[in-house]
Amino acid sequence: MPKKDILVLQDLLLSNAQAAAAIRAELEGRGILAVNLMSSPGAGKTSLLERIAERTAGGLKIAVIEGDIETERDAERIRAKGVPAWQITTGGACHLEAKMVGRVLPSVPPETEILFIENVGNLVCPAGYDLGERLRIVLLSAPEGDDKPKKYPQAFATAQTLVLTKADLFPHLPFDPAKAKAEALELNPKLEVFITSAVTGEGLDELVAHLRRKREEILGRA
Amino acid sequence: MPKKDILVLQDLLLSNAQAAAAIRAELEGRGILAVNLMSSPGAGKTSLLERIAERTAGGLKIAVIEGDIETERDAERIRAKGVPAWQITTGGACHLEAKMVGRVLPSVPPETEILFIENVGNLVCPAGYDLGERLRIVLLSAPEGDDKPKKYPQAFATAQTLVLTKADLFPHLPFDPAKAKAEALELNPKLEVFITSAVTGEGLDELVAHLRRKREEILGRA
Repeated sequence: MPKKDILVLQDLLLSNAQAAAAIRAELEGRGILAVNLMSSPGAGKTSLLERIAERTAGGLKIAVIEGDIETERDAERIRAKGVPAWQITTGGACHLEAKMVGRVLPSVPPETEILFIENVGNLVCPAGYDLGERLRIVLLSAPEGDDKPKKYPQAFATAQTLVLTKADLFPHLPFDPAKAKAEALELNPKLEVFITSAVTGEGLDELVAHLRRKREEILGRA
Repeated sequence: MPKKDILVLQDLLLSNAQAAAAIRAELEGRGILAVNLMSSPGAGKTSLLERIAERTAGGLKIAVIEGDIETERDAERIRAKGVPAWQITTGGACHLEAKMVGRVLPSVPPETEILFIENVGNLVCPAGYDLGERLRIVLLSAPEGDDKPKKYPQAFATAQTLVLTKADLFPHLPFDPAKAKAEALELNPKLEVFITSAVTGEGLDELVAHLRRKREEILGRA
């Protein structure tokens, strides 16, 4: 990149990092665990959140920020589950930035325990932007193929949790979950990996238990 | 965006447009139709090219430029089909740029009739960058969902051809190809749409015939 572009990118990342740090401090004070969900388009982020909403109804208090280029569709799907949701449309930008998230925080109810931030569907750009989260989850859906971690390494290298989705399609695909997992662990040996299906429910109770445990570990609150 | 960022982006796009125009002129002179393939990660771009290579072997002369963040994997898959292929790894950038393509052109054999440029797997960023192609194809795979065109409009609005892939999975998914097609056509009424499967071969002969016809229409060469 030419030097001028590098300087502008550094400015952007610096101002993003400052906004992210402020969000992290605010949410920590409020006892809210922020979770940044990243994946390709159509890997199943919104479906996963719908299933989590069903499993936590009446218990864990969740809220969702939805990031998309265009449309309110995902926030509407989450609200239909009785969960507070706000749609951010980036109008073309390929990832959320911390300041977009910051504008929504005053609306997040005080009783919230986990705030999910569903990023724009993109396995590349979101990985470079801290949104003030304490937990970063990357989804890889079976139809995308088990060769994706090393082709899109940053998302897998910077996440703490990997969720392999659409396990119900395993019988119809050449996807090898053990290969996908092994490749992701080569990039990031500390990744915790879950195999899930939003159709059959496989792995979802384990994932919800993981989220509760992470909140307790990270924020020291049950 | 702050004014400084906008100016840098304009510089980048202007220099990309100049490089793309030079590529277009060169390839037109050489009788080569350049095709820019765009989609999410794992939508089946490389598998589609493998199947096209099998169907054109001994006939139409094709060559492939593979764009990825990391790894030579896709170029190796194409070379295994006996087709010349070059891997561009962007090292983090979320799309190809025209100047990256320009560096490969001297290696493209003179007898080439169609040069496929497989962009980085990303349904957002590649749409903003002209690579000097004369035909832009967007792929949407069935597992991604039929709601994607309006959520990622630019790729669908700027393509001439839409290929719906993984039709073999239709029986296992809620995907409605008519809905996906209708939504894409709302964004871009001139899109020509194909339904394909790299597993069963559905729609591939029609797609190869379309490519031959487009080369003839656009370059005036059979």
